[in-house]
Amino acid sequence: MISKAMEPLIHNNSAVRAMFEEGKQMAAKYGAENVYDFSLGNPNLHPPKEVKQAILDILDTEDPHRVHGYMSNAGFETTRQAVAENLNKRYGSHYTMENIIMVVGAASGLNILLKTILDPDDEVIVFAPFFVEYRNYVSNYYARTVVVPPSPETGFLPRMDAFEERITPKTKAVIINTPNNPTGAIYPAETLKAIGEVLDRKSKEIGHPIYLISDEPYRELVYTDQEVPFVPDYYTNTLIGYSFSKSLSLPGERIGYVVIPSESDNAKEFIEAATIANRVSGSVNAPSLMQLVIERCLDAQVDVPYYKKNAEDLYRIVTEAGFQCVRPQGAFYLWVASPVADEKEFVQAGKEEHLIMVPGSSFAGPGNVRLSFCVSNDMILRSEPAFRALGKKYFG
Amino acid sequence: MISKAMEPLIHNNSAVRAMFEEGKQMAAKYGAENVYDFSLGNPNLHPPKEVKQAILDILDTEDPHRVHGYMSNAGFETTRQAVAENLNKRYGSHYTMENIIMVVGAASGLNILLKTILDPDDEVIVFAPFFVEYRNYVSNYYARTVVVPPSPETGFLPRMDAFEERITPKTKAVIINTPNNPTGAIYPAETLKAIGEVLDRKSKEIGHPIYLISDEPYRELVYTDQEVPFVPDYYTNTLIGYSFSKSLSLPGERIGYVVIPSESDNAKEFIEAATIANRVSGSVNAPSLMQLVIERCLDAQVDVPYYKKNAEDLYRIVTEAGFQCVRPQGAFYLWVASPVADEKEFVQAGKEEHLIMVPGSSFAGPGNVRLSFCVSNDMILRSEPAFRALGKKYFG
Repeated sequence: MISKAMEPLIHNNSAVRAMFEEGKQMAAKYGAENVYDFSLGNPNLHPPKEVKQAILDILDTEDPHRVHGYMSNAGFETTRQAVAENLNKRYGSHYTMENIIMVVGAASGLNILLKTILDPDDEVIVFAPFFVEYRNYVSNYYARTVVVPPSPETGFLPRMDAFEERITPKTKAVIINTPNNPTGAIYPAETLKAIGEVLDRKSKEIGHPIYLISDEPYRELVYTDQEVPFVPDYYTNTLIGYSFSKSLSLPGERIGYVVIPSESDNAKEFIEAATIANRVSGSVNAPSLMQLVIERCLDAQVDVPYYKKNAEDLYRIVTEAGFQCVRPQGAFYLWVASPVADEKEFVQAGKEEHLIMVPGSSFAGPGNVRLSFCVSNDMILRSEPAFRALGKKYFG
Repeated sequence: MISKAMEPLIHNNSAVRAMFEEGKQMAAKYGAENVYDFSLGNPNLHPPKEVKQAILDILDTEDPHRVHGYMSNAGFETTRQAVAENLNKRYGSHYTMENIIMVVGAASGLNILLKTILDPDDEVIVFAPFFVEYRNYVSNYYARTVVVPPSPETGFLPRMDAFEERITPKTKAVIINTPNNPTGAIYPAETLKAIGEVLDRKSKEIGHPIYLISDEPYRELVYTDQEVPFVPDYYTNTLIGYSFSKSLSLPGERIGYVVIPSESDNAKEFIEAATIANRVSGSVNAPSLMQLVIERCLDAQVDVPYYKKNAEDLYRIVTEAGFQCVRPQGAFYLWVASPVADEKEFVQAGKEEHLIMVPGSSFAGPGNVRLSFCVSNDMILRSEPAFRALGKKYFG
C-alpha cells in the first residue's frame, strides 16, 4: 500500500532524529542537566528582536488581505526586490526580483530547482560527507545521487579528480554546501574556481549545462576571518538555495529563496519552470507573513559571536580530551574522527557518558561523528568531564 | 535543460492565472471600477479577528524558540491534538494527534498523501469538472490521472457507472472535492455511500485498498441547510486534506492538515510514511507560528453569510440575464453553462463587457465557465448591466 519509492525511507528513517529521540529519553531518565545532547541542528538562539518588531508593525499597518493572501507564486514583488538588492549590496551582483523566487525553506528550494531539471535516471553529484536529505530530494524525481568520496587530508574539500571522473552525460547538477554541514568547512575561492572550470569543460563536452546548486543556509555563520566566496562569481550556471532558518533562527517558519541568475543558461525559461514547480509541488508560495517579515529583516542576524564561542569551547574540550577534529570555520557542527573504525561503537560509548552524538554514516562519512553546537554554551562547558572520561576510554 | 516532466507545464500554464493577469490589464485600461473580475479564488474577506489576536498573544506569551523552531515533522503535538478534538466534537470521530499531520496547505497535503502511495504508472481517478492542479499533483509521481466525465443532469454529482468502469488494478486513489470547485456542488450522503460501496468491492477485487482522498478546503463554506456529510463515515480508507485558506482567509500562509484515520488499512505505516513524505518533499513541517495560530482559532471562521449573499446575488443576476447555471450549495464558485459550444468564445464575448470569467476547459469541463464570487458584493451588484448586455447578445 505504501509506494515502492517510499518504502526504503520508512526502514531507514533519519538517524539524526533517532539520536534526538534517544537524547530526550535519556534526559527524562537522568535529568536534562546531566545529558549533553549534540544531535539536532535546531538553533538554540532566539530570532533577533527585529523579527518580532516586524510582525507587530506588519499587523499594525498592512492590509490583512495582502499579509495573508495569495500573491504571485514566486512571492511578493517587494520581498523579491528587497532580497535582490540586499544580495547586490553584499556581493556586487546585479539581480532584480526576476532572479528571486521565495520558497518554503531551502529544502523546498532545492527540491524546486531539482524538479525543474531532473528526469528519471538523471544524476546529481554530491561530495561526501553531505547532508543526507540530498539523497531523498534527488530520489523525489527518480534520479540518482552520485557520491564523491571524502578527503579528510584537505579538511574535507572536494576531491577534484574523483569529481571529474564521476561526471557523465546523465549528470544534470552538482550540489555543494559551504559553510558545510557536517564538516564546518568553507570552500575557498580556488576550490570554487576549480569546480567551475571542470563544470564548464564538462558541460561543453556532454552538450548540456551542468548546474551547480549552492545550498547556503549557513552563509552568515562564519567563525574565521576567511571570506565566504559568493559562488555565482565562479561559475555561470550557479543556482542558490537559501534559508533564513539559521541566520534569523526561524527554522520552523519555512522561509527562504532561490536565486536563478540571468546569466545562467536558458534563465528565462528556467525561472518560469521553477515558479511553476513551486506551485505544483504543493508549496504554491512561501508563507506570506514571513515573506513580509524577512523583507524588513534582511540586515538582521542572530548572535553569531555566541556560536563562535561555542565552536571554540567545544573544539577545545573535544581536542583536549584527545580526539581529532576539523576546526569549524562555519555552520554549527564539529566533525570528529572516531577513535575506532566503527563510529557507531564510539557513539554507543559516548552514550554511556550521556553524550549524544550522530554517527557520520548518516552523512556518508563513516568513521566520524557530528556534534551540533547550536546549543547552550553552558551545556558545552558542563560536558567537559564527560568528553574527558570518553577520551580516557580510548587514549588512557 | 528543463526536465521533460516540466516542459508541458510551461507551455500549458494556469488559465486561471492568465485570466487574472488579463483582468489586471483591463483594470489599468478602463479603471478598476469598470472591470468585473471573477477569475481568482483568492478570498476577499479578511481573516476573523481571532487570527490577529492569536498572533499577538503567542508573541507575548510563548517562548520564541518554540514559536519559530523545529518541531516533529508532523507538527506541534498540541496543535495536532486540538485539531483532532475539534473534528471529534464536530463529527463524532475518535481521532488523536496520531491521526493528524500538519501540512503546508491542502495542495501540499494532497501531494504528501499521493507521494505516500503512488509509484510511476499508477492511476488516480477524478470526477470532471475538477480543480486542474490535481493532474499536476498526480504527475509529480509519474502516475496518471483518469477522468470520469461530468454529469450536468445530476448537478455534477459523480457518474457511478462510468466511475466503476475506470477502476483498474493500477488504481491507487480517487480524489473528491466537496463542496466542489468549480461547480459548488455538495455530495449528499447517498453519493458518498455509493462511492464507498464501489471502492470496497473493487478494493477486494483488485487485492489492494483504493484510498479515497477528500480535498476539503471549502468544508465550512456552505449556503444551504444541507449538511456536508463527513466523508470518513462512508468509507474506511478515506484520507482528508484540509486547508485554512478559505475558512480563515489565510491562503498565503500555507497552513492545513491531513487526516489518516486509525481504521484505514495499514494506518500506522501510512502515518509514518506520510510524515516522512512531508519532510523529504521539502516542506519539512507546516509553518510553526501559523500552527500555533490555528490551534487557537479552530472555532473561528470568516463571515460565511457574506459569501452566501454573494452566491445569491450572482446567481440571480446571471440567471436573470438568461444563462443556465447550478445554484451553488458551497465553495465560492458559480458554474455557468456557455450558451455556445466553445466556451472560450463566450469568455471572449464576456471580456467585451469587461467580465472576466475562466473557461471550463481549465477544469476539464468544456462548455462551461467558472465565476469566483469571493469578491466584493458591490462588484457583483455593479456587474448586473454587463451580464444583461452579455445575455442580450445570445438571447436577444
